[in-house]
Amino acid sequence: MAGSSFGNIFRITTWGESHGPALGVVIDGVPAGLSLSEADIQPFMDRRAPGNSAISTPRKEPDQVEILSGVFDGMTTGCPVSIMVRNTSQHSADYSAIKDIYRPGHADYTYDSKYGFRDYRGGGRSSGRETLSRVAAGAVAQKILKELGIDVCSYTLQIGPVSIDKSRFDRSLITSLPTCMPDSEADSEAMAYLSEVRENNDSAGGVIETVITGMPAGIGDPVFNKLSASLSGAIMSIGAMKAVEFGDGTAVACARGSENNDAFRMNGGSIVKLTNHSGGLLGGMSDGSDITIRSYVKPTPSIYKTQETVNRDGSETTVSISGRHDPVIVPRAVVVVESMCAVTIVDLLMTNMSAKMDSLKGFYM
Amino acid sequence: MAGSSFGNIFRITTWGESHGPALGVVIDGVPAGLSLSEADIQPFMDRRAPGNSAISTPRKEPDQVEILSGVFDGMTTGCPVSIMVRNTSQHSADYSAIKDIYRPGHADYTYDSKYGFRDYRGGGRSSGRETLSRVAAGAVAQKILKELGIDVCSYTLQIGPVSIDKSRFDRSLITSLPTCMPDSEADSEAMAYLSEVRENNDSAGGVIETVITGMPAGIGDPVFNKLSASLSGAIMSIGAMKAVEFGDGTAVACARGSENNDAFRMNGGSIVKLTNHSGGLLGGMSDGSDITIRSYVKPTPSIYKTQETVNRDGSETTVSISGRHDPVIVPRAVVVVESMCAVTIVDLLMTNMSAKMDSLKGFYM
Amino acid sequence: MAGSSFGNIFRITTWGESHGPALGVVIDGVPAGLSLSEADIQPFMDRRAPGNSAISTPRKEPDQVEILSGVFDGMTTGCPVSIMVRNTSQHSADYSAIKDIYRPGHADYTYDSKYGFRDYRGGGRSSGRETLSRVAAGAVAQKILKELGIDVCSYTLQIGPVSIDKSRFDRSLITSLPTCMPDSEADSEAMAYLSEVRENNDSAGGVIETVITGMPAGIGDPVFNKLSASLSGAIMSIGAMKAVEFGDGTAVACARGSENNDAFRMNGGSIVKLTNHSGGLLGGMSDGSDITIRSYVKPTPSIYKTQETVNRDGSETTVSISGRHDPVIVPRAVVVVESMCAVTIVDLLMTNMSAKMDSLKGFYM
Amino acid sequence: MAGSSFGNIFRITTWGESHGPALGVVIDGVPAGLSLSEADIQPFMDRRAPGNSAISTPRKEPDQVEILSGVFDGMTTGCPVSIMVRNTSQHSADYSAIKDIYRPGHADYTYDSKYGFRDYRGGGRSSGRETLSRVAAGAVAQKILKELGIDVCSYTLQIGPVSIDKSRFDRSLITSLPTCMPDSEADSEAMAYLSEVRENNDSAGGVIETVITGMPAGIGDPVFNKLSASLSGAIMSIGAMKAVEFGDGTAVACARGSENNDAFRMNGGSIVKLTNHSGGLLGGMSDGSDITIRSYVKPTPSIYKTQETVNRDGSETTVSISGRHDPVIVPRAVVVVESMCAVTIVDLLMTNMSAKMDSLKGFYM
Repeated sequence: MAGSSFGNIFRITTWGESHGPALGVVIDGVPAGLSLSEADIQPFMDRRAPGNSAISTPRKEPDQVEILSGVFDGMTTGCPVSIMVRNTSQHSADYSAIKDIYRPGHADYTYDSKYGFRDYRGGGRSSGRETLSRVAAGAVAQKILKELGIDVCSYTLQIGPVSIDKSRFDRSLITSLPTCMPDSEADSEAMAYLSEVRENNDSAGGVIETVITGMPAGIGDPVFNKLSASLSGAIMSIGAMKAVEFGDGTAVACARGSENNDAFRMNGGSIVKLTNHSGGLLGGMSDGSDITIRSYVKPTPSIYKTQETVNRDGSETTVSISGRHDPVIVPRAVVVVESMCAVTIVDLLMTNMSAKMDSLKGFYM
Repeated sequence: MAGSSFGNIFRITTWGESHGPALGVVIDGVPAGLSLSEADIQPFMDRRAPGNSAISTPRKEPDQVEILSGVFDGMTTGCPVSIMVRNTSQHSADYSAIKDIYRPGHADYTYDSKYGFRDYRGGGRSSGRETLSRVAAGAVAQKILKELGIDVCSYTLQIGPVSIDKSRFDRSLITSLPTCMPDSEADSEAMAYLSEVRENNDSAGGVIETVITGMPAGIGDPVFNKLSASLSGAIMSIGAMKAVEFGDGTAVACARGSENNDAFRMNGGSIVKLTNHSGGLLGGMSDGSDITIRSYVKPTPSIYKTQETVNRDGSETTVSISGRHDPVIVPRAVVVVESMCAVTIVDLLMTNMSAKMDSLKGFYM
Repeated sequence: MAGSSFGNIFRITTWGESHGPALGVVIDGVPAGLSLSEADIQPFMDRRAPGNSAISTPRKEPDQVEILSGVFDGMTTGCPVSIMVRNTSQHSADYSAIKDIYRPGHADYTYDSKYGFRDYRGGGRSSGRETLSRVAAGAVAQKILKELGIDVCSYTLQIGPVSIDKSRFDRSLITSLPTCMPDSEADSEAMAYLSEVRENNDSAGGVIETVITGMPAGIGDPVFNKLSASLSGAIMSIGAMKAVEFGDGTAVACARGSENNDAFRMNGGSIVKLTNHSGGLLGGMSDGSDITIRSYVKPTPSIYKTQETVNRDGSETTVSISGRHDPVIVPRAVVVVESMCAVTIVDLLMTNMSAKMDSLKGFYM
Repeated sequence: MAGSSFGNIFRITTWGESHGPALGVVIDGVPAGLSLSEADIQPFMDRRAPGNSAISTPRKEPDQVEILSGVFDGMTTGCPVSIMVRNTSQHSADYSAIKDIYRPGHADYTYDSKYGFRDYRGGGRSSGRETLSRVAAGAVAQKILKELGIDVCSYTLQIGPVSIDKSRFDRSLITSLPTCMPDSEADSEAMAYLSEVRENNDSAGGVIETVITGMPAGIGDPVFNKLSASLSGAIMSIGAMKAVEFGDGTAVACARGSENNDAFRMNGGSIVKLTNHSGGLLGGMSDGSDITIRSYVKPTPSIYKTQETVNRDGSETTVSISGRHDPVIVPRAVVVVESMCAVTIVDLLMTNMSAKMDSLKGFYM
């Protein structure tokens, strides 16, 4: 398919299907001299893994990462870092009942149209399990960013109609609450909503917000590799994403220039913006203020409710998706969005290093 | 900057600044045997050019395209098509007053941060004039798509608070009304709104909608080169874009799976969807129904109103942007969005040709 | 390092080091519907493995391939094919004696210069074991080419001063004789030469010839992605390669145009060339006749003879390379060259599919 | 064709045909802050232009470069540098006689096979005039390298059987003698040889040598983007190249390891090699010593002698190429090889900047 690689210098290539032997990622362009072990990656994998709450799929796998290359004596060598996770809980038999049915909202029909073939076992490559590879890569990117003072933080902003109240923002809750909301009251409300949705054999969508702090100004390459464009492509490549916005986002349509522009002022010798309607991006490049992104996730297409659909052979039928699935994807997608943002930024930080002749001279002379 | 190319097999490379000698694009991968002349491209350029109405910049240029390569005897040869437009109406002097000022909402500060340098003449490379190159490429892509029965149509959906009424949709109006709305009543309202905005030395934003019809199913490459991801990156690479959504877009957050999934049925031997919440995309690939996209454009950052800002040397100041600028970018951006969509689709149609072993055998054996 | 990927649509990404846990390759862009199993790949791996003769390293590993993704029910799915080989015979301890020494002719010094770090265990990523990944990818490419009637055949042309006699050419010998020469007399002579070389604690170089038959005319993309340029880059990316030539190669320097040009004639309704000085390439594209390539391999840099060198700390020393190494690389590199050629050709066959507007219309309309 | 771009961060995209309106190149990734004007580029163009001697085509054009973008106030801005040369001396009529004939040794047949179409005017895109774009890009790359203390020098090593004597090497002669040999005696001999060749309605080939000095060690990215592999692809992408070799090149086949390895020693605190059989490359990366390359150029395929060939319609015929052509391509190709080497090196110097975590931290912290 040749769509499995992302990035230019820091480039990830993912592989694997939901019910194949394993999934993984090759991360090329990891700089040499980064301390790295499985212990740096596993916590990110665990964030993506289903929890123990009512909103999680009963499919439980340890998702144990194994680093196969690129690390020697605990340090990266500059060689590609290959990371693999074995599948251990495949129940392919679960899917035989639907092997000829195009599930509504899934990629069954489009994969079959493209390849004349479809891996019906849990969606194959189009499964959410594919994101596991992105998270492994994201963990490495995050480790690099941490050394550069850049923080990427994603969390659940909204599930169905339930939004967080930012005055109650508590970052520590993101990794401890089942909804990945940084607000325990909203989390409780959202859990109640999800409980009701599940009882109705249905599913829910939501919104993930990402805030990136510590970015130097000027990151992103003009025209087609803008930071905004690269982040959009990165996020929208995640299954189930239907919209992405930066800063004031869709609200800019009704705003006036005088409301939307952010005034510049000086503060302690540094240039600052008095507001941040731009979401940290001007001309598609980082402007030094926080980058804010909202990603909109559709409701899980797998529902127990009976739906009308067709068979591969062109006969009409109905389907009710049994098997293991989450009533909402949002909480597990939080770390995936965060990972894609981290991977994107590391790559653009690297290409930025040769933007000035002075930088080249400083490096080589 | 190395961000000036887009696409894989059908690849465009743009160049040029607002006030340099010329702008242009090199389109590589144009298939041989396409009838092509300047007359195919000029109408698209004219759609991007400022109109004669009250909402247009007084900067008037013919934007005359010249094809410099890749066409012989009226047909493309398979060689790169190079297209150039000379700048004829540069008034660099207009900008000397702001040469050290970082204009709010513009890329002045971020370019200077990146390059230690800034082309203050009309924004240089970050100017909306850069999109001229995209439109020239889009015209070629559109000509290819037309021969394949694929139609890409963008129009103004909303300006400030004024939206079109789809029951009055008249496609012919898109290229005749100053707002590029397909609804003359909404156009009048929007013009009134813009008039008020302008009187207040301010500017307006809006929304562009794109509908792509005739797409075969299965276009787009899984994971990172999904059609959805590629289109998002393509659109968000256009200056002033702050959000993009497909199908039901941001509304999916509150929808339930049973509301958001589109049922499949048979119709005259073909598989059809009864609804199109997905916006023509499943698993990131085209599902054969119309692809629907909405792109959110921020208000023109150039306003006559006085704004607080800083100088390059770190001193605080104020600025009121005189010179030539539109009170709203939306109408001129319509053809730019359309162009980027067309370019993206042609490229993914090409990579799709080798998706099946049977296709390779059919071609070579 | 971001140099671990090769190809555009059919793209391989390799990973792994000589003494790490495993090596492997991700092959993206494999068309769906190709019958594929480990049994298709293993024979190619075995050709690369050391033999049992006197010219082979005593390091013996089964190099057992495992397909981790991209195949379902014995057929490729269009998803990336991930292939892994576990290292089972690492003796890292062998290398501790030379961990601070820059071995002459090896990449120790250049890796250390680049990364501030060096994996001294058998050369790490610069080891010949890296080519294992290329061969796994080559096996898949060869299977595709076979279905398209294209044959890629490499063999040893020369070892040290001993060349084959083409009048004795017997293809079946390539995979059975220790030298991979298609001529048993030359093989015996070469073995005697290698025996003498080995007794002198030294090593030998040689030449690999490749003949590609069945190529349609017009493959390769003009200017930078010429078939000739792509093959050159592919072959010269193999360690130890010092020269590559096509057709008459270096001899063209002394030839005259009238001697070097190949006349065209008709034969049974087809255009043929009366000679093939061009080596099957005109304007860098395949001309329908056999493509002929010669690749020059330097003598194994690891020799038992004592050599002058320096330590990492800048002190002078001497080194005699003990451990496991071949007196000649050529026979094991034969299948590596063949593999890189096959991978290159598959990719260019794919990009060629959209070269004409008629092809696009034939595919989509 | 999508083969018109070369490089990753420092990326050139060329366009134009022999008899179209113009030719040019877009250079993306030029660092900001490089002093640049047409005067920096023109001398390189003039080196590529035919001279006034007996060995030059009578086609005389000024090849006047025009910089269309990327430079402001005499300095590069970080935006793509677009350079154009208008064709002024096209005599398309010269070619009408051969418009249906496939000229032996030319790309007529392969272009027609690929595109179903052929630009018969002087070879179209396959003409040597295409290299003009490479030289313009090379001039910019050379200017960057000069600021980094890296020198790329190509010259004619051999024409037909006449080689230079290195004991007479005089660099200043390269740009003053008609053969571009750095040895006036060899130049005289070569001119005599060419005179004889021409009288016989024939043409000659030759060899170009390139020496690159001042390279830091560690440049080039392991595996597929090795400096050796990248340079090979770059050089072999030039029309008429049939072989390329590094250091001892083809001679390594007969050498022994003890003869081919270069011993390391210390010299004034620096690591040096006592010999340079490797041609400045170990493991495909620069080893700090001079990089030496030889490129083999076939005799000009255009000859006055009558040759057998076929027509487009499949009828046999003969052809004698009248019109303007050089009896030898070598002298004009010298600056083309030099240019491709310079472009390749700049790109790999840039990607090398993020090879170490320490470099990233040094840049951003």
